[in-house]
Amino acid sequence: MAGKDVPVSPLAPKRQPKVPAVPGVRFATAEAGIRYKGRTDVVFMLLDAGTQAAGVFTRSKCPSAPVDWCRENLAQGSARAIVVNSGNANAFTGLKGRDSVKLTAEIAAKAAGCKPQEVFIASTGVIGEPLDGMKFEGVLKDCAARAAEGPWLDAAKAIMTTDTFPKALSRKARIDGHEVVIAGIAKGAGMIAPDMATMLSFVFTDAPIAAPVLQALLAKGVKGSFNAVTVDSDTSTSDTLMLFATGKAAARGVPKISEINDARLSGFKRALNSLLLELAHLVCKDGEGARKFVEIRVAGATSARSAKRVALSIANSPLVKTAIAGEDANWGRVVMAVGKAGEPADRDLLSIWFGDIRVAHGGERDPDYSEEATSSYMEGDEIDIRVDLGLGRGQATVWTCDLTKEYVAINGDYRS
Amino acid sequence: MAGKDVPVSPLAPKRQPKVPAVPGVRFATAEAGIRYKGRTDVVFMLLDAGTQAAGVFTRSKCPSAPVDWCRENLAQGSARAIVVNSGNANAFTGLKGRDSVKLTAEIAAKAAGCKPQEVFIASTGVIGEPLDGMKFEGVLKDCAARAAEGPWLDAAKAIMTTDTFPKALSRKARIDGHEVVIAGIAKGAGMIAPDMATMLSFVFTDAPIAAPVLQALLAKGVKGSFNAVTVDSDTSTSDTLMLFATGKAAARGVPKISEINDARLSGFKRALNSLLLELAHLVCKDGEGARKFVEIRVAGATSARSAKRVALSIANSPLVKTAIAGEDANWGRVVMAVGKAGEPADRDLLSIWFGDIRVAHGGERDPDYSEEATSSYMEGDEIDIRVDLGLGRGQATVWTCDLTKEYVAINGDYRS
Repeated sequence: MAGKDVPVSPLAPKRQPKVPAVPGVRFATAEAGIRYKGRTDVVFMLLDAGTQAAGVFTRSKCPSAPVDWCRENLAQGSARAIVVNSGNANAFTGLKGRDSVKLTAEIAAKAAGCKPQEVFIASTGVIGEPLDGMKFEGVLKDCAARAAEGPWLDAAKAIMTTDTFPKALSRKARIDGHEVVIAGIAKGAGMIAPDMATMLSFVFTDAPIAAPVLQALLAKGVKGSFNAVTVDSDTSTSDTLMLFATGKAAARGVPKISEINDARLSGFKRALNSLLLELAHLVCKDGEGARKFVEIRVAGATSARSAKRVALSIANSPLVKTAIAGEDANWGRVVMAVGKAGEPADRDLLSIWFGDIRVAHGGERDPDYSEEATSSYMEGDEIDIRVDLGLGRGQATVWTCDLTKEYVAINGDYRS
Repeated sequence: MAGKDVPVSPLAPKRQPKVPAVPGVRFATAEAGIRYKGRTDVVFMLLDAGTQAAGVFTRSKCPSAPVDWCRENLAQGSARAIVVNSGNANAFTGLKGRDSVKLTAEIAAKAAGCKPQEVFIASTGVIGEPLDGMKFEGVLKDCAARAAEGPWLDAAKAIMTTDTFPKALSRKARIDGHEVVIAGIAKGAGMIAPDMATMLSFVFTDAPIAAPVLQALLAKGVKGSFNAVTVDSDTSTSDTLMLFATGKAAARGVPKISEINDARLSGFKRALNSLLLELAHLVCKDGEGARKFVEIRVAGATSARSAKRVALSIANSPLVKTAIAGEDANWGRVVMAVGKAGEPADRDLLSIWFGDIRVAHGGERDPDYSEEATSSYMEGDEIDIRVDLGLGRGQATVWTCDLTKEYVAINGDYRS
């Protein structure tokens, strides 16, 4: 594995936020020895009866066995337990993989006192290595006995692979005047591209929201967050983002929500989207080898879809990303990336800004361009690139990180 | 500029081939001081009257001023002179760029004794910096006075940017029993992706072939060669591949060819395609930071187009490329790249080979998989990855190189 000798991302938050308990959610972590030694690699989560579930998954045509399992069981909309492991993705493991997931679900169901179909499973790590479901025997039972409402950081740590810091966040929101809580964890840190761009993320709330509403909220919320970040343009076989609602807040008078258009949901929507966005940004800030966090805003496109494609073309360009790593104000490569996107663009209508500095306008370098000012801007930790195509009203924002030698080092030696 | 301290690619040919003169083509190189110091940066080529021309260019929506110029003048099909410079791409330089190209063509036309519309221009280097056309004043006149039929390596050297070795090749072919010659030069070495993937390449023959036939030959020949190699998935604003036929061989009895379906062209087609393919491979072998040359063959796709998309998804995956750099037999990332391509694929019908070693079959690791044998294979200079999707008869082959720390180093510091 990588990660042992890799320093924490310079973009990591200076301090970890306190994440409160979500009533109805308990968990514990364990060292199952799946691949790593001397660190936790499993989190087992218990959800109270009545918990509603929603999920979005990788669009890979070669999804992992756990993704297949989750998709299949999501139809019934309820959940009682979650098993997440790091070190092995159980992807491209054929019938063995399916059997392993089934066995894991049976072991988890026994430990949680529920049906295997109420168990959701996610695995992250190496692809193509069989994962022995028996590794969970005993481990999950022990976790169930120890399960508590926190600390969330322990759960976030257990699911890390090449991540350099754990990611756990929370929000408070009001539904009909009553407070509810939302907490979530996520891990990256390579093979991160839409759709989706998470590897794994799990979000929990005590709000009493029905599964179809959760699903609609998640499908919408993922677009501007996890599906708008990219580290390396590679899409995992295992990407999983799930949202669980225990409904425990109903006891405090929060009304049950069963319609996506319920006006009482508006505050919750905002809080959820804000949480998803910040989690997605954290994944980006912990992109493998990342030293700079990059926001790319494209406006003036012929449509929002077109704007997003142009933005992703810039965000995924190795030449743009290496220039940012080198603190080189090489806006010519942004022109190149706009040009290669295959979307409507007119060289002579294009404007480009690095931060507040307009570097290109009207088909050429800005007359007021200052190499010194722009180079100085490039030294910052956070780089904003803005492009106006000058054609229409379509706009989109995506986030990425720079491409450094460390990315190559980490990924040239991942399996060994 | 980069390149000064970068060692020659380990994939460079052990010796440079001898490239013979092409009757009707003369050239000279010069130090115009456009950007580099102490090296040639201009080649001026003179073509005898009657030379026919064809070209294919970048599909970028933000093409350089020289590309616009060449496209416009290609319509008339004849050529008398070529100016190629390195150090400045004259791309995204607005009206100044257009004026600069026009001025360069006028200076060249004067030196060559032809019309400006018979001058073709290509520029490679930094994007967004105005290029002063006056840099060519005097230089081209002097070149015209010194122009000779060789050596081709000098021309190949003058157009290099981050290339670590010059690329010049030749072929002989027979048309109706008479020998003709084909010679070509090319430069890479980053911002290389279909379509096209050349940056610049110029190919010459003394065969008497009409411009429309040349254009048809080139359009077809580029598909399996320059448009099938990728270094970094980035597409240049300046990609230019041109083919010139001086017709001088007519004097030796070679018949004039004016139909693409002329059966007497078959040997020439083969020779031309073979030359284009080897030039494209050289560009790939000199990809920035490249230490391994990678062939990716995809078969069993639902169509050839689908096969090529899957092959390019593998070839452009940073995770596949870094694994190859690390000599890591990480075929799981090939599964990932197949899955993310968005093309029809069935995990459980997929087979993958590294060289002759089948590593994956039937949705899981090959039962006979040997980590030792595969790792040993990965130590070679040339890596063959073969994928059978098991769905249909579509197939495609593309070539790429690995992604190393040197790529990041070269591109993190290109402009400075």
